Amino acid sequence: MCSLEHVNPRVRGIRVSPHSRLQILAAHIAQDIKLGALKPFKEVIDVSSGDPHRAGIKPITFVRQVLAVCLLPQLLEKKSLPLDVRLRARRLLEACDGGSVGSYTASSGMLHVRQSIAEFIMRRDGGVPSYAKDVFISVGFQNALMVVVKLLASGEEETQTGVLTPMPCPHTLPALLDEGGVTLVPHQLMEGRGWAVDLDELHQTLKTARGRCEPRAIYISNPGNPTGHVQDWKSIQEVIQFAAAERLLLLVDEVYQDSVYGEGREFISYKRVLFEMDKVYSETVQLVSFHSLSSAQMGECGLRAGYMELVNIDPEVMHFVDTLLCTGISTPVTGQLALDLMVNPPQPGDLSFDTYTQEILLTRTTLSQNAQRAQEFLNELPGMSCQPAMGGIYLYPRLHLPSEIIEKAKILEVEADVLYCQMLLEDKGVCLGAGSQYGETTGNYHLRLCILVLPDTLEEVLAGLGSFYLHGHTSSP
Amino acid sequence: MCSLEHVNPRVRGIRVSPHSRLQILAAHIAQDIKLGALKPFKEVIDVSSGDPHRAGIKPITFVRQVLAVCLLPQLLEKKSLPLDVRLRARRLLEACDGGSVGSYTASSGMLHVRQSIAEFIMRRDGGVPSYAKDVFISVGFQNALMVVVKLLASGEEETQTGVLTPMPCPHTLPALLDEGGVTLVPHQLMEGRGWAVDLDELHQTLKTARGRCEPRAIYISNPGNPTGHVQDWKSIQEVIQFAAAERLLLLVDEVYQDSVYGEGREFISYKRVLFEMDKVYSETVQLVSFHSLSSAQMGECGLRAGYMELVNIDPEVMHFVDTLLCTGISTPVTGQLALDLMVNPPQPGDLSFDTYTQEILLTRTTLSQNAQRAQEFLNELPGMSCQPAMGGIYLYPRLHLPSEIIEKAKILEVEADVLYCQMLLEDKGVCLGAGSQYGETTGNYHLRLCILVLPDTLEEVLAGLGSFYLHGHTSSP
Repeated sequence: MCSLEHVNPRVRGIRVSPHSRLQILAAHIAQDIKLGALKPFKEVIDVSSGDPHRAGIKPITFVRQVLAVCLLPQLLEKKSLPLDVRLRARRLLEACDGGSVGSYTASSGMLHVRQSIAEFIMRRDGGVPSYAKDVFISVGFQNALMVVVKLLASGEEETQTGVLTPMPCPHTLPALLDEGGVTLVPHQLMEGRGWAVDLDELHQTLKTARGRCEPRAIYISNPGNPTGHVQDWKSIQEVIQFAAAERLLLLVDEVYQDSVYGEGREFISYKRVLFEMDKVYSETVQLVSFHSLSSAQMGECGLRAGYMELVNIDPEVMHFVDTLLCTGISTPVTGQLALDLMVNPPQPGDLSFDTYTQEILLTRTTLSQNAQRAQEFLNELPGMSCQPAMGGIYLYPRLHLPSEIIEKAKILEVEADVLYCQMLLEDKGVCLGAGSQYGETTGNYHLRLCILVLPDTLEEVLAGLGSFYLHGHTSSP
Repeated sequence: MCSLEHVNPRVRGIRVSPHSRLQILAAHIAQDIKLGALKPFKEVIDVSSGDPHRAGIKPITFVRQVLAVCLLPQLLEKKSLPLDVRLRARRLLEACDGGSVGSYTASSGMLHVRQSIAEFIMRRDGGVPSYAKDVFISVGFQNALMVVVKLLASGEEETQTGVLTPMPCPHTLPALLDEGGVTLVPHQLMEGRGWAVDLDELHQTLKTARGRCEPRAIYISNPGNPTGHVQDWKSIQEVIQFAAAERLLLLVDEVYQDSVYGEGREFISYKRVLFEMDKVYSETVQLVSFHSLSSAQMGECGLRAGYMELVNIDPEVMHFVDTLLCTGISTPVTGQLALDLMVNPPQPGDLSFDTYTQEILLTRTTLSQNAQRAQEFLNELPGMSCQPAMGGIYLYPRLHLPSEIIEKAKILEVEADVLYCQMLLEDKGVCLGAGSQYGETTGNYHLRLCILVLPDTLEEVLAGLGSFYLHGHTSSP
C-alpha cells in the first residue's frame, strides 16, 4: 500500500517553494476569468519564470523547419523549404537509427549530436579541446543536474554531501537538491556589487558548513539566474582556485551563455578560464558545465533537451553517469536534434542564414532593451531598487515593504514577499516570483521578473507594478 | 570532489544487466564492420529489445503529419495535407501555451491530453469512470514508474520497501528498482503454463520475503514482457484479491495492451476487472496502470512519453507524485501530443482513417505472423522450446545448453546464456537478450527475442539461430 505515512521521508521532505503556491493561485485566477469572473484585468501575465514561447517570443524558423522535415521525411521533397533545411534534416535522419526520430538513442545521447556539441564548445572556447565522450545529453538541464547530484549524494546529517549554493539561486534548485538527498549550504551573493560572488563569504560559509555536512560541490549560475550578474575572468579564476583548494566539484549552470547584453561584458566559460590556468588546476579541478535548449535564443523549453560536459572526472565515475541516464532510456530525439541545430546554426551563404540571424538578433535586442527599460522603471519606483543586469533573462529587484505588510504576513504565516506577490496577482493579474525561497530570510525582500517577453507585455507588467505601488504597498527605502 | 570512493553507494549498487554488456559487444562489432572488418555477416541485427522504427516498422503517417504541422504551423495552410490532420494540429496547438510546442506544460502533463487519455480509458473499459486528475504524463513509462517507486521507497535492509517482481520481468526493471532504493522480491512465473502467474507461488514468496523487507507493492506485466502471456479475467481477479488481502499496491505495466494476438484472447485491464468486483475491492485496492507511446502500434520510442493512471490513491499521496514530476519540469510536448493522437485516433469518415487503419493492421499482422512463425521454428530446433505467446512483442524461448558451454561459462565467470548470446553475436551477428538477469539462476536458460521486426529480418534471425544450432551450441532437452 502507498498510504501517506509510508511515503518516502525524503520525498515528504522536499520543500514546497513559494513559486508553486503562486502558480496555483495564478491558475485559479485564470480559470475564474475563463468562467466569466469580472476582474480589473483581462488575463494573468506570468513573468515569474522563463517560458519564451508562452510569452509570445517566436520560435526560430530554421529549427522548426528542420524538425518538421525530420518528423515527416516526405517533406524532404518539398521545394518550398530551403535547401539547407532539407540537407540538414537528411543528415540528422541519417544519424537516427532506422532513419526515424521514433527510434531510441543511446542513453547518453546521439553520438552525432554529442560531436556537434563538442565542436561548438571548442569554437566557443578558442580551441580548448572538448570530446564527445565527455558530453552527456539529457531531458533538460535539471535532469542532467539531478544525475550528478545523485552521484554525489551520500551520508546522513553531518556526513551528508553538501552543495554550496548561491543565494539567490534558480528557483527550482532547492527542491532538486532536497530530492537528490544532499544538503543545501547557502552562500550569499553580494547585492551591492551587482550580485557578485564573494570569496570571503565562500570561505566563511564553507567553514561553518564543515562539521554539519560534507561539502563536496559548489553550484554556480553564470550568467546569474535570477541575478543577471555575469562573472568576469578574474572572478571565475578566483572561484576555480577556491574550488581547487577546498576540493569541491564545480557545478556550473551556463544555460544563459547566449544572452549576455551588459556593455563591455561577454560570456566566458569556466572551462576556458580553467584551461588557461596552471596545470595544477587545469588537470585536476573537476567541472560540470550545463547548457539547455531552453536557453534564451532557442527558447524551446517544450522540446526538453539539455547537456552537460564533464571535465577531469574519473572515467569510472563517468560510467555511473551512463548508468543513471539509462533509467530514462533516452532523451527525446526531437530535442536532441534541436540541440544539434542550436550548436551548429546556419552559416553565411546558407539560404536560412539571414532569417536565422535576424531572428536571433531580435531576441537579443528585445532582451537587452527590456532589461534597460525595466531597470530604469524599477529604480524610479520608490520602494524598489534594482541592480543592473548584464545577462540572463531575469531581473531581481529589491523590495522595501512597509511594516503593515510585514506584520500582516506574520499573522497569515506567509513570507512577506510572497504576500506582496499574491496581492499583486489578485489586484493586477501580474505574477512575479518571490525572492524568499527557504523560510530563512535575511530580512530583505526581492522579486523575480522574467524579461524575455514581448515589449508590450513588459509594459503591462510595469504598469501593473507602478499602479500597485501607488496604492501604497511598498515603502521608501 | 566526485571521486570513485565517494560515489553514492546506492548508485554503485545498481546491478549491471547482462543486456548492457551484450549491447556494448554489439556496438563494437558494428563499429568493426564499419571500419571494414570482414565478418560472416553484413550487419548486426539486434532483436534483444523492442525498437520498432529501428527495425524498419514504419511510423503512423497521421501521427507524423500532425506533429509536423504542430512544429511548423505554417503547414496549417498546406492543402496537400489532409483536413483532419490540419484540424487536429490546430486543436492541439490551441492547447499549448502561447500556441507553441516550445512552451513548458504543467509537470503532470497538458490537461487537454490528460482528458483525452481519461476518455480513452473509459471507452476501453466499458464506461468505468476515469478522471484526468488521476492521469499523470511523464517522459516515458520508466520515468512514471520511477516516480511511484521513489514514493514507495523507505527503510533499509529488513525495513526496506519490497516490490514483488515476476521472474522473468522487463529487462530494465531490476536496475530501476535498485536505483529507486527498493528490494526486488522475485516470484517465479509458471513456464509450463505459458508463463501464468501462480497464486501459491505469490503467497510463498511473500511469506519468505516478510522479515527480510517490507513488501508494499506487486509488479505485473500484462501482456507479459518478455513472456507474451496475456492474463484472463479470472487470473487478474485472483491477483487483485491477493493484493487486497496482503495490502499491496498493484503496479501494472499494460504497455502492450494494443498488441494481443492470441486466438480468443483480448486485453482486459486490471482496472476494469477491479471495478466489476465488490466494493471492498473496487473502493480500496490501490492500482497504478502504465501505458506508453513506445507501445507496439505507435512505436514512437524516440518521442518519449508515457502515462500512468492512479486508482484509489490518497490525494495527499498524489500531491507527492506532482512534486516528483516537478523535478523534470515537464514532459516533451511532441511526445504529449503524440499520446493524444494514440488515444484519440482518426474516426470513420475522417480523411486519414483508412490509411491509419491499414497501418495499424499491418503492424498487428506482422506481429502475430512473426510470433507464429518464430514459435514454430524455435520449437522445431532441438535444444529450444518456446511457450506460445498471446501478446506483447517478445518471445521467451527456453534454451537447453550442452554441459560444455555451461562449464566454459563457469570458467569465464559469465552466465551460460550470456555466453551463448555472445557467441551467437560474434558468429552470426544476431543479438538476442539473455534470460539471466540477476546472478541467481534456476538452472534454466532463456533467450529474449523481439518479434516486432520486418518479416525478412525475422527470417535472418531465425536462419542465424538455426545454423548456429547446427554447430552444436545447444543440446537436446
